[in-house]
Amino acid sequence: MTIKLTYFDFNGGRGEPARLAMYIGGIEFEDDRIAMEIWPERKMGTPFHQLPVLEIDGKVLTQSNSINRYIGRTAMLYPDDPWQAALCDEAMDIMEDLTNIIVPTFFMEDENEKRAAREEMAKNAFPLYLGQLQNYLQERGNRYFADDRLTVADLKVFVMIRYFKSGLMDYVDVNLVDEVAPALVAHFERVNEHSQIKAYYDSH
Amino acid sequence: MTIKLTYFDFNGGRGEPARLAMYIGGIEFEDDRIAMEIWPERKMGTPFHQLPVLEIDGKVLTQSNSINRYIGRTAMLYPDDPWQAALCDEAMDIMEDLTNIIVPTFFMEDENEKRAAREEMAKNAFPLYLGQLQNYLQERGNRYFADDRLTVADLKVFVMIRYFKSGLMDYVDVNLVDEVAPALVAHFERVNEHSQIKAYYDSH
Repeated sequence: MTIKLTYFDFNGGRGEPARLAMYIGGIEFEDDRIAMEIWPERKMGTPFHQLPVLEIDGKVLTQSNSINRYIGRTAMLYPDDPWQAALCDEAMDIMEDLTNIIVPTFFMEDENEKRAAREEMAKNAFPLYLGQLQNYLQERGNRYFADDRLTVADLKVFVMIRYFKSGLMDYVDVNLVDEVAPALVAHFERVNEHSQIKAYYDSH
Repeated sequence: MTIKLTYFDFNGGRGEPARLAMYIGGIEFEDDRIAMEIWPERKMGTPFHQLPVLEIDGKVLTQSNSINRYIGRTAMLYPDDPWQAALCDEAMDIMEDLTNIIVPTFFMEDENEKRAAREEMAKNAFPLYLGQLQNYLQERGNRYFADDRLTVADLKVFVMIRYFKSGLMDYVDVNLVDEVAPALVAHFERVNEHSQIKAYYDSH
């Protein structure tokens, strides 16, 4: 089986959970990283003018959580039990909702508009989403989002919290998650200490 | 098992595919329909201030495609094969992307702004999404989106095309799908003729 994952050339975003899952699962794949400068010419060759795109023996799959689920199953990082699978799916879909809230601000050219939008999110959407996600984690034993073990849901949440804590989200306090959902920071740190996650970021 | 699905009181939108799947699968459930007038008071009681919400023996699941997948498995309308499951997921996620594009226009109070936004979508996003989805359908035998049989992906696409053809989307030509993706209209009509879908809408 030949696997290629095409995504932007940075360690985060919608393509990162599948990269991490394949690394943890020992699945070899072509890590096709697109520099932003060549994206305009590659864009029209993607089905929905979006990344990530997964290719399995030349067959194409789009949509980040569809990719995460397929890769998660292949890498043994997805629950077999239907209810646990649903909880794993839900956590990933919640992160997609949050991503959909944040992404439009990337394209705001007026800094005042961007600042206002991000400050509004920091007051409303972020505490709502992160606080409820923290509740879910705590209800499930405060370790993992599903199946009482590491799944692609944990990787997707980890990548999001890593972004919040990176200092790269202008106009949003780098300590926001510590304040509104400290259990998610503890979860982030636990996943970050996972031996294969550490090894991955040592080499990327 | 006690199942309750809470969604808005109309025959469409993000809650409709799960309603249809449960009807087809013969799964009894409480069809909790929220009138828009009482939504403000119910809203704060939902985990993310959104519908649909599924309750299974009191346990809560949010996120429409997570719900569709769980209900799809329960109703035997979801593929077992991992790749076919991925194609089913992808079609549902594409419909979610399209929904996320359309929904902000519902809340535009300025009619000129709404008109401009919808006309822009009719020229760009709708042909792109619907055209590519049509390609997928045709590549897979032109009958179903996954597993060569009716799955929750078909129900989700059906509900969307039904909306496009309803005449309820102001400033978008009711024949847009016929023009940009006629195979999706044929798919819509085929699903619409499914005996249980017909029976459902005869009684709803």
